[in-house]
Amino acid sequence: MSGAREGLDVALAEARAGLAEGGVPIGAALLGPAGEVLGRGHNRRVQDGDPSAHAETAAFRAAGRQRSYADTTMVTTLSPCWYCSGLVRQFGIGRVVIGEARTFHGGHDWLTEHGVQVQVLDDAECARIMHEFVAARPELWFEDIGRAR
Amino acid sequence: MSGAREGLDVALAEARAGLAEGGVPIGAALLGPAGEVLGRGHNRRVQDGDPSAHAETAAFRAAGRQRSYADTTMVTTLSPCWYCSGLVRQFGIGRVVIGEARTFHGGHDWLTEHGVQVQVLDDAECARIMHEFVAARPELWFEDIGRAR
Repeated sequence: MSGAREGLDVALAEARAGLAEGGVPIGAALLGPAGEVLGRGHNRRVQDGDPSAHAETAAFRAAGRQRSYADTTMVTTLSPCWYCSGLVRQFGIGRVVIGEARTFHGGHDWLTEHGVQVQVLDDAECARIMHEFVAARPELWFEDIGRAR
Repeated sequence: MSGAREGLDVALAEARAGLAEGGVPIGAALLGPAGEVLGRGHNRRVQDGDPSAHAETAAFRAAGRQRSYADTTMVTTLSPCWYCSGLVRQFGIGRVVIGEARTFHGGHDWLTEHGVQVQVLDDAECARIMHEFVAARPELWFEDIGRAR
């Protein structure tokens, strides 16, 4: 899949920016047909007090209104949760590139079933960042996926 | 389901506010265990140029960070799309009250399958507002659900 690595580098830079801000280190970018960045963003739950600001939603929002998403690619450092998987399905985003799905397995198999082209890169750096974050701030991570107790 | 009608009145007021602003007339409210409004909002695609600002996401965002959603109810004037259905599933929102599912049938059957308590009120006023809007502004409506051509 062309541009997957370059897209993941953008998403990783977003994840690192989020971590530096004290937030959940997940980043994403929405790419156009030629791999150009239409929108990029990272999780902003902590920074904005906004529980809807998952990385994929942030990147989608930053891209503004688009006529069609069929030829776009959502690149994200982590397997998308049901919320962000629903985003991909509803808007017909054609491809999803995932940094890793070791630390969290979201809805990407469901996306494959529904015709989305999904690629899991199993990137060690994405996994390292999330693994360390979940170990350090488990309460924040579980809150972010709706499993707060 | 207690508070369903009262909640729908809040969501309908939001939908009407969106219509008055020139936007897509869909409103929602997230209710707490006693029926209190935790957050409310309406679709703001046109107003903010934000394609992620579906009504349910707007209400969820307005409620801020919550410890648990198990005892909350999402009330929406229209059957939730896959994006907003994914929101409900991911965050474990316990109940969904839907004004109508005539003009659009989203992911609420899927939510029922996954244990969410779903009630469709089949409210004539919700259906009238959406029916008139889709007839008047079909291009905007199809853009809002990712079917722009």
